[in-house]
Amino acid sequence: MSETVILSVDALTARIESIFRKAGLTARHAAAVARVIAAGERDGCRSHGIYRIEGCLRTVKAGKVSVYAEPALEDDGSPVLRVAAGGGFSCAAFELGAPVLAERARQFGLAALIINDCTHFSALWPEVEALADMGVAALAMCPSYATVAPTGGTQPLLGTNPLAFGWPRAGGHPPYVFDFATSAAARGEIELHRREGRPLPNGWALDAGGKPTTEPETALSGAMLPFGGHKGSAISTMIELLAGVMIGDLTSSEALDFLGTTTLSPRHGELILALSPERFARGRRGDPFRRAEALFEAIMSQGARLPSQRRFAARERTMREGVELSAAEASQLDRLQALGLDAVS
Amino acid sequence: MSETVILSVDALTARIESIFRKAGLTARHAAAVARVIAAGERDGCRSHGIYRIEGCLRTVKAGKVSVYAEPALEDDGSPVLRVAAGGGFSCAAFELGAPVLAERARQFGLAALIINDCTHFSALWPEVEALADMGVAALAMCPSYATVAPTGGTQPLLGTNPLAFGWPRAGGHPPYVFDFATSAAARGEIELHRREGRPLPNGWALDAGGKPTTEPETALSGAMLPFGGHKGSAISTMIELLAGVMIGDLTSSEALDFLGTTTLSPRHGELILALSPERFARGRRGDPFRRAEALFEAIMSQGARLPSQRRFAARERTMREGVELSAAEASQLDRLQALGLDAVS
Repeated sequence: MSETVILSVDALTARIESIFRKAGLTARHAAAVARVIAAGERDGCRSHGIYRIEGCLRTVKAGKVSVYAEPALEDDGSPVLRVAAGGGFSCAAFELGAPVLAERARQFGLAALIINDCTHFSALWPEVEALADMGVAALAMCPSYATVAPTGGTQPLLGTNPLAFGWPRAGGHPPYVFDFATSAAARGEIELHRREGRPLPNGWALDAGGKPTTEPETALSGAMLPFGGHKGSAISTMIELLAGVMIGDLTSSEALDFLGTTTLSPRHGELILALSPERFARGRRGDPFRRAEALFEAIMSQGARLPSQRRFAARERTMREGVELSAAEASQLDRLQALGLDAVS
Repeated sequence: MSETVILSVDALTARIESIFRKAGLTARHAAAVARVIAAGERDGCRSHGIYRIEGCLRTVKAGKVSVYAEPALEDDGSPVLRVAAGGGFSCAAFELGAPVLAERARQFGLAALIINDCTHFSALWPEVEALADMGVAALAMCPSYATVAPTGGTQPLLGTNPLAFGWPRAGGHPPYVFDFATSAAARGEIELHRREGRPLPNGWALDAGGKPTTEPETALSGAMLPFGGHKGSAISTMIELLAGVMIGDLTSSEALDFLGTTTLSPRHGELILALSPERFARGRRGDPFRRAEALFEAIMSQGARLPSQRRFAARERTMREGVELSAAEASQLDRLQALGLDAVS
């Protein structure tokens, strides 16, 4: 058995940052992207960990993301903020806008952050979690690229369109956070079934002719389905409307046209709403944070889990013990570091 | 076969209004409640039509709703508005707050309307649709009473917690509107299966011990389940947080404690967010309303339906031809009109 390598989260972040510097990203972008990827690895979300580095580098190499773009905040003092990402990765754009969003939500009660023209490869939980850490509730959503058929339809039109929510918790608890694709499954899960030769569960996908299929290969050239039938399909459509057309950015269908492939990170926009629980609860009985804890307690006391609990447990472990990389993963990091964009096709 | 009675929507509204006047509601409440109930009948949503009258009257008779309460708007000029419903039906409170909400959303880009201490028996689509008719996108949610177990749990804790969304459409189209329970099924659907002696689909309900059941009677004394597994459960929990604890109002569990039964209309609060597409799209290419139409067209051209299409078709028919009541329904309206609260137990 080959040796594994253990790195502290900080050391891993520095490694990833250095890979992205080598690939040409500005210091700001490299640091922001590295923080998000290292957080995925830290939390045991391997699908959003170092696995993502190559996809990001391929997107850079294909010229589909700007490595230089300086995100610019457009702020007229209202509760609607905009960060023009200028075709760069979304991470630095979010980091620029988030503190202003939280401050604006405290000032007005609620506020919105639009990110336009960004390349988005990350999960949304790092964002709603960062906002919850700033004391506000947050709801984030974005299109992706057209791989999902609306319920009752036959062809890819919607994206996997993630929806994420964060609520600040007191008492040293990490926030209440959920983040999920509005498709029945993530594309990566279908890919995993393909590799393992396992059939898909019913309700995940259609073939290219729009008929239900449980065959992963057929599904990948067909369409995925929304979660929860027509309800999930409606939510996914709402995300196209609010975080696509309403913010003047690409829908999942337009994002696919722009990119021409689903193997690179998609370009589109993102919408994040932030709400101040103190402002909404003002003048009413009961502290909203304490009452929320009673709700969480009632959920957990009947054996149900809060979303993200597994992730937070992994985080506690890796913050103490470090992140364990296989020998193959460690040498791949070395390779990406040494070769930069030459390491990817 | 007994004769049916055909009433214009206006005539039906007047009939319902008069029943609620007889039951003691103020003119304002009676008119607002009648508009919502007649709209249900008009749109072929019989579960939210005249069928609801008796439940409302029972709630009045049980002393669980105020027939006099004057809804009061609390407005500090910010984007967060509150209507104190004072224990009255939600309809008049919404009618008071909605135009201010839409105006505030246009002014700030987005705004929120909190309704507190209301008795809520209606669907949420009349509300998001009214706001869409005022030119803003709207997202509405509220708890109900604890009848749904969180995914992975065993006991009722969450409500059927509806989520509704509206988007204004140009060209004389009714708005894009969805409105659904975040439970796998509405309680009424389980009741319907019971009456017809049909087993429930898998995934709808648990027995009192927390084990899955397809037996309607057993389900009614157990717990319903969220739609879409852990994703629906997370959304339902978010609704408890935002439209319960955050706005300083009852959670579904507290609403059940307050009421002591699920046979009366629940008391709780409601949260409605409104967003101005013009403001969010400002400075970006493309008209959001025109782009939304392209999305709807793409959905329908592959054979999928937009939510509410069936409802709008029924509306078109009843606005032209009137609402058809069975002889039994018509005489029940007569009876409610004659007896008032004495007609219900």
